Amino acid sequence: MPTVPMIEYADASPEVRAVYDDIMATRKTEWINNFWKALAHDPATLGRTWQSVKQIMAPGALDALTKEMIYVAVSATNQCGYCIASHTAAARKAGMTDAMFAEVMAVVGMANETNRLASGYQVEIDEKFLASPPAKA
Amino acid sequence: MPTVPMIEYADASPEVRAVYDDIMATRKTEWINNFWKALAHDPATLGRTWQSVKQIMAPGALDALTKEMIYVAVSATNQCGYCIASHTAAARKAGMTDAMFAEVMAVVGMANETNRLASGYQVEIDEKFLASPPAKA
Amino acid sequence: MPTVPMIEYADASPEVRAVYDDIMATRKTEWINNFWKALAHDPATLGRTWQSVKQIMAPGALDALTKEMIYVAVSATNQCGYCIASHTAAARKAGMTDAMFAEVMAVVGMANETNRLASGYQVEIDEKFLASPPAKA
Amino acid sequence: MPTVPMIEYADASPEVRAVYDDIMATRKTEWINNFWKALAHDPATLGRTWQSVKQIMAPGALDALTKEMIYVAVSATNQCGYCIASHTAAARKAGMTDAMFAEVMAVVGMANETNRLASGYQVEIDEKFLASPPAKA
Amino acid sequence: MPTVPMIEYADASPEVRAVYDDIMATRKTEWINNFWKALAHDPATLGRTWQSVKQIMAPGALDALTKEMIYVAVSATNQCGYCIASHTAAARKAGMTDAMFAEVMAVVGMANETNRLASGYQVEIDEKFLASPPAKA
Amino acid sequence: MPTVPMIEYADASPEVRAVYDDIMATRKTEWINNFWKALAHDPATLGRTWQSVKQIMAPGALDALTKEMIYVAVSATNQCGYCIASHTAAARKAGMTDAMFAEVMAVVGMANETNRLASGYQVEIDEKFLASPPAKA
Repeated sequence: MPTVPMIEYADASPEVRAVYDDIMATRKTEWINNFWKALAHDPATLGRTWQSVKQIMAPGALDALTKEMIYVAVSATNQCGYCIASHTAAARKAGMTDAMFAEVMAVVGMANETNRLASGYQVEIDEKFLASPPAKA
Repeated sequence: MPTVPMIEYADASPEVRAVYDDIMATRKTEWINNFWKALAHDPATLGRTWQSVKQIMAPGALDALTKEMIYVAVSATNQCGYCIASHTAAARKAGMTDAMFAEVMAVVGMANETNRLASGYQVEIDEKFLASPPAKA
Repeated sequence: MPTVPMIEYADASPEVRAVYDDIMATRKTEWINNFWKALAHDPATLGRTWQSVKQIMAPGALDALTKEMIYVAVSATNQCGYCIASHTAAARKAGMTDAMFAEVMAVVGMANETNRLASGYQVEIDEKFLASPPAKA
Repeated sequence: MPTVPMIEYADASPEVRAVYDDIMATRKTEWINNFWKALAHDPATLGRTWQSVKQIMAPGALDALTKEMIYVAVSATNQCGYCIASHTAAARKAGMTDAMFAEVMAVVGMANETNRLASGYQVEIDEKFLASPPAKA
Repeated sequence: MPTVPMIEYADASPEVRAVYDDIMATRKTEWINNFWKALAHDPATLGRTWQSVKQIMAPGALDALTKEMIYVAVSATNQCGYCIASHTAAARKAGMTDAMFAEVMAVVGMANETNRLASGYQVEIDEKFLASPPAKA
Repeated sequence: MPTVPMIEYADASPEVRAVYDDIMATRKTEWINNFWKALAHDPATLGRTWQSVKQIMAPGALDALTKEMIYVAVSATNQCGYCIASHTAAARKAGMTDAMFAEVMAVVGMANETNRLASGYQVEIDEKFLASPPAKA
């Protein structure tokens, strides 16, 4: 049961409808998923979050598929059920095959393991890793 | 201060040296970073962890750079200082530019934000996301 | 399915009933929620946890509503479904409006994002932040 | 050692300087902390993050002090060293006394404890908590 | 709804069946739980994960029950519903009584609380804790 | 730099000294570590936290060593530097050998890995794990 009722398009204010319209146009779909319908109770957060997601997830130095797989990796690390379901769907739509998904999961699992081994053994950062970073590419 | 003293190559058992040799050969380097020198106190964990990392991080359905960027994304989400430093270095070696790093971070930040919005609003998973997954690619 | 069966008032030992009675009296309700009914299998943990919660959540330098909103913020960050549901209800009972809830969520989302940006970029703490803290108020 | 060099005002592009100027004007200070100087390598993230923080942390249904204390609570839950240091300083500037800080920490500690007890005991959400939320205030 | 369909024994490849057979033989059971049936879509991850779990969870310096209780403690800390359910069952099978479970949970709760108090108060590690570790036992 | 100055025994109030005395007597040591000296700024939290730790960590259905190793496991999972250092020291004092520490870490690493695989694959809890728990031992 969500904390606030979902706001459907028919019941939405013009401000919220404008965001819904942009989501559907950007994603080439006629469907709004529950996440946005819940945020719609707070139009400021709805608008800001959508603008940020739209900007961040657009292809740039990384393509859209790589970005969606990173989103899945973070969501699996945080164990957010909703986000794993929605971004696995988005990544598949962007071209993620089952073999790619399996490799994302394998890396996520391994990284979560070695993160704790490094912390638990209190491993100090090697001087080499502290050296000046390379010039901006 | 690490929990156990680092084991250098010169002081390592043949079993540990074999792992060190394979790490250096695989990574085309003559250097072993602290993580492995700490794990070396437990040769079983050292060997198993290295074999897993080697297998998982090799190019497959995803290339090595994408895998390293996912590793950085998970480590930043978990806030593991050692792993952020070492895998950012590894990702750079694999070709990650500063622009790519910036986009990885932007996605990581956004995903961590929306993960909590979805949970905090108790958003229910849309039926569409629960539908049968596509056949294996 | 909980790990242990819920212990209802009618089936509770005098020791557990005394805690249930104090919970109901303190909260001015005649109802015990599942969290306590599960802990009741371990009367020592039940008693200690209730005493701590009672002491900590009582108004002090911070009022009860502020404390409940902080509880919601932590629970959303940890993504604990039970605690988000129960403490959102408690915060509403203490006076949290939907507008306040929306702002709590916005801060929680933002903090989770910048926490990872700060860690991922390995930002060092500014000397100004390391200066001696102010004298006790 | 940060992942990218800090960008000082003197070396900043006009786009970055405009953000720095707005940060200093909004916060009535002549100082930019390291977090923004690191983000400055990615002007898009710098600008978007600052605009979001500015919008979210401004007084609204909640006052600025309450918001800063929630930020500290989230940062302590995530154990982000940089964010704990910077937002504890910000909260103090906004009026947080040592007594208030102590109560924030007590709630944070307790919530982190009961979050795990609820999950570990697999406590099911009470029907009462699933009932329809109150009408928007 | 799992991301990939469960692979039953009857539909499994010889490679997957060999792992299933070893799981059942090692655990003296005729039953495979869903975790492995999902991983079976990626035989490499299935095989590697099972070999690691088998090696790690076998009695060594610690007995099997202690290891299962530590597994429960980590899963409760991470709030992984599946893992809490499956490893609580495994720990019970290995001899964990309700009284032991209650003590595991009490320690998990307390550790999660003090972890945040230590971080939130920015407590520095005592020099005594940084001293050289004892020689290997 | 801690958030509040450490309170030494010589400067402590009688209320704080009483807690310090009990810590030293219980632990058979003449030394107070920084965690308690920081909490001492909030005598209520100091007293409550110490009483809880004392009660929870005393031998019961589990011995003191097992409890300390679980504490280390949780702290490594949360990556709390202070707590890893202090509880690894405490566990060693209680009898943890390097071989035991290595096995704790191996389980912690594995559990953190499979927790994410179970979540990422959205594995559903097996009906067998949902069956009624055994009667109280």
